[in-house]
Amino acid sequence: MYYPSREQILASAGRIAFGIHRTPVLHSAYLDKAFDTSFYFKCENFQKAGAFKSRGAINAVFSLEEQQVSKGVATHSSGNHAQALARAAALRQVPAYIVMPENAPRVKIKAVKGYGGRITFCPPTLEARENTLKQIILKTGAVEIHPYDDLKVIEGQATAAMELLETEPDLDIILCPVGGGGLLSGTALSARYFSGKAKVIACEPAGADDAYRSFKSGRFVPSVHPNTIADGLLTSLGRLTFPIVREFVDDIVTVEEKNIVKAMQLIFERMKIVVEPSSAVPLAAVLEKKVDVAGKKTGIILSGGNVDLDHLPWQ
Amino acid sequence: MYYPSREQILASAGRIAFGIHRTPVLHSAYLDKAFDTSFYFKCENFQKAGAFKSRGAINAVFSLEEQQVSKGVATHSSGNHAQALARAAALRQVPAYIVMPENAPRVKIKAVKGYGGRITFCPPTLEARENTLKQIILKTGAVEIHPYDDLKVIEGQATAAMELLETEPDLDIILCPVGGGGLLSGTALSARYFSGKAKVIACEPAGADDAYRSFKSGRFVPSVHPNTIADGLLTSLGRLTFPIVREFVDDIVTVEEKNIVKAMQLIFERMKIVVEPSSAVPLAAVLEKKVDVAGKKTGIILSGGNVDLDHLPWQ
Repeated sequence: MYYPSREQILASAGRIAFGIHRTPVLHSAYLDKAFDTSFYFKCENFQKAGAFKSRGAINAVFSLEEQQVSKGVATHSSGNHAQALARAAALRQVPAYIVMPENAPRVKIKAVKGYGGRITFCPPTLEARENTLKQIILKTGAVEIHPYDDLKVIEGQATAAMELLETEPDLDIILCPVGGGGLLSGTALSARYFSGKAKVIACEPAGADDAYRSFKSGRFVPSVHPNTIADGLLTSLGRLTFPIVREFVDDIVTVEEKNIVKAMQLIFERMKIVVEPSSAVPLAAVLEKKVDVAGKKTGIILSGGNVDLDHLPWQ
Repeated sequence: MYYPSREQILASAGRIAFGIHRTPVLHSAYLDKAFDTSFYFKCENFQKAGAFKSRGAINAVFSLEEQQVSKGVATHSSGNHAQALARAAALRQVPAYIVMPENAPRVKIKAVKGYGGRITFCPPTLEARENTLKQIILKTGAVEIHPYDDLKVIEGQATAAMELLETEPDLDIILCPVGGGGLLSGTALSARYFSGKAKVIACEPAGADDAYRSFKSGRFVPSVHPNTIADGLLTSLGRLTFPIVREFVDDIVTVEEKNIVKAMQLIFERMKIVVEPSSAVPLAAVLEKKVDVAGKKTGIILSGGNVDLDHLPWQ
């Protein structure tokens, strides 16, 4: 098993500091009282490009040697990684080739273009996305940066929990959403390295529960037809992230869609901040009493804030 | 003309500190670039009870002598003042009698009840509200706390700009929404006392432009049929606030409804925070180029975040 060391995570924090926000840790007296706990919300919704993905993308792009990166970087993504990678490449002044499905939301296309990303559209299947990406890499010589199954990406994502633990060293639990497992792997490693006691509990939509099933069975069970409003969590664990999750994560719980919506609404109403559905998955686990937070110091990573404000899910 | 002194505002900051948040000052690289300025957003949407009104309400309630306040406090309000006063009274452990129109939004009624306020409903006319309030005061002996035309309320509201100037002493401009003028009066006084140079420019919906007309004509012109989405700004200036506004505010500009919506949407999308329409009025003035912010340090007071998330105005 390969996984980043404490020193590598510390080094990545230094590498990316110029290009990310040290995001605030917010509280809510209302939510603390409602759930008899002390919440510490790490607000990656305020991160550059609107999500934690900026951390891993910058770390990956700036870890490459000049000669490796000079022809650009490439990925297929319709989500936050696309924007984050486009922005990271712009900071390094190299091209970013982004393969997106034809049916990607217009707002995401606009955001990637806004950061200078060069978009290639393809049919909305995984096969078409992977083939199109291969062709672009062959043609341009760009380096592929995977959204989560990449050690440099995992290192970068680890800095969110590292910062949270710098601010609140005494956390009992850290709740973290899981999709491909990049953020979760990094969070579990940082909890191990930078806290004496914080348990890491991953929270996953029941409609995309491959990480839950893989974790419980001990063997890799990818999602077949994942379906959840938490569009950042549709992906399955990867070859690098699954072993790290299995080794360092304390537990995985699943939540229902209606509670993701309810938790998201609570965060908007009570904390007055904009989060995407994936960010609400950990609080949904608290609502469902899948995690015992009573009397504890409970960290929650709010993964991002890129949500379609024209169609909020409770409306 | 009566108005709070520098020392009175400093004293009120000390008086209310136990019961309010020192709200953060946020930035937006995107908005700075778009308008060639440096914005400093004072986030009263994160304030207790969701708006700056908590400052004035606590200052007023805690400035009363024990024998004055023992029978409670009272007001008529369907907005943020009602919640703030109910909460302030609960902190002082005295009753809050709140007169609300029968057609007040259910969410506001729930919030007032949540803070322990005792609600009396009345027909939705100003006359009915004032008469009902008078009867309650006669019956209970409660002290009326006016939402804005009260020197202790103005003192409290002044602490928002005071804090903003403590964080950013070098502001060139402070933009502030205006309804009854409590926040604006306090902001103008704090700019005078705590900054050598910051100009205060009030921003008002064109559909409720009594302050603009009163300021420009030099005589009090109340609104007759105000109409704006910025429901916190429907009220007219008061006997105490108008003279302070006339003396200490540098200018008043008006904005169109569609730009209030556009500015509110920009704040949600780009800053990932929840604000109510009144909070978006100053940024709308920047969008309309009614205020020249180029190359300047521009403070903006985001007045609150109590908005109906089921019906956002751009949807």
